[in-house]
Amino acid sequence: MKSLTKHLVFNIPARMDFLNITSEVETLVRESGVQEGLCLVNAMHITASVFINDDETGLHHDYKKWLEELAPFDPSPERYHHNRTGEDNADAHHKRQIMGREVVVAVTEGRLDFGPWEQIFYGEFDGRRAKRVMVKIIGE
Amino acid sequence: MKSLTKHLVFNIPARMDFLNITSEVETLVRESGVQEGLCLVNAMHITASVFINDDETGLHHDYKKWLEELAPFDPSPERYHHNRTGEDNADAHHKRQIMGREVVVAVTEGRLDFGPWEQIFYGEFDGRRAKRVMVKIIGE
Amino acid sequence: MKSLTKHLVFNIPARMDFLNITSEVETLVRESGVQEGLCLVNAMHITASVFINDDETGLHHDYKKWLEELAPFDPSPERYHHNRTGEDNADAHHKRQIMGREVVVAVTEGRLDFGPWEQIFYGEFDGRRAKRVMVKIIGE
Repeated sequence: MKSLTKHLVFNIPARMDFLNITSEVETLVRESGVQEGLCLVNAMHITASVFINDDETGLHHDYKKWLEELAPFDPSPERYHHNRTGEDNADAHHKRQIMGREVVVAVTEGRLDFGPWEQIFYGEFDGRRAKRVMVKIIGE
Repeated sequence: MKSLTKHLVFNIPARMDFLNITSEVETLVRESGVQEGLCLVNAMHITASVFINDDETGLHHDYKKWLEELAPFDPSPERYHHNRTGEDNADAHHKRQIMGREVVVAVTEGRLDFGPWEQIFYGEFDGRRAKRVMVKIIGE
Repeated sequence: MKSLTKHLVFNIPARMDFLNITSEVETLVRESGVQEGLCLVNAMHITASVFINDDETGLHHDYKKWLEELAPFDPSPERYHHNRTGEDNADAHHKRQIMGREVVVAVTEGRLDFGPWEQIFYGEFDGRRAKRVMVKIIGE
């Protein structure tokens, strides 16, 4: 069994934004030498997501608006008890649960085995600082 | 290490519906010869889900109503910017994030290692056309 | 390839609550002898979740309030058709979809390869009875 472990670092200049990281992950799959296996990609921070969807600006606008409706940013300690700790990012912990922590992708014949529109995104909900994403590939 | 890769195709006649695909996946686990390992099942399209829950008609009715409340179908370009591309399926991209892209299931002694009520569903949110589901099984 | 399979049992005294199970999972990773691989942890019941987030009481309060808003407990057969079966837990099937069924965690150098605040939780939405969680570890 082969394996590859890599921690990527991203520093998103906005509080909330989405970054297409597909090509970085694809490069690591080639580097791993794995022909048949699984590739795990997950946020290592609990106010961020890794998810698969469309690389379309309008959709990303829609996601941000929708997540803001489902879990609005509110630094006050009234709406979110979590913000009584001195944090202001309780909303980000909620948004991340909607979008998910991780994706697991099949590796087939040495490549990410994707449908026509699948792209991997890093989803940031409390940005403006360096945060890590794990890529782990196992197989043969 | 053994592995099996299979793309299943489904053509759901409704815009939104759920299809129990557990027996197809179970058949592939047997075909793989894997005794101990992991089985990944994911939608290859970004307006569809694979999820595990109950095979109960009332619950499926409830899910559809709930998803429609959380992210209503609206083909106009006002509510969803994604629909300015000429698409009408922005709602489906949102519903899929709630229900998830994929499941990873343990394979133990050559079978899906499931609790009493776990069933695998293909969740369609923009149907009436052929769409693919990936099954990847790795192990020994 | 090495593998370890374990079913943990939890009996949460409340209808809804979250239990930190990180140390149980870490112990099983050591027991497996796997140095490089993947660790799957999933609820085996469809009214429960396994998720990764912060071990902070205020946040857990916020999650419960938020989930109750998104999918309120209502045993009547009016709001949820699922409750026409005699069940009263339709809300729990919805809450579980928001929080997710499973997590997949990288195992690196024999340990869960975690960011600074990542902790694994069992999320119960229909408790007061014994329910199972699967831990499956594969690798080398």
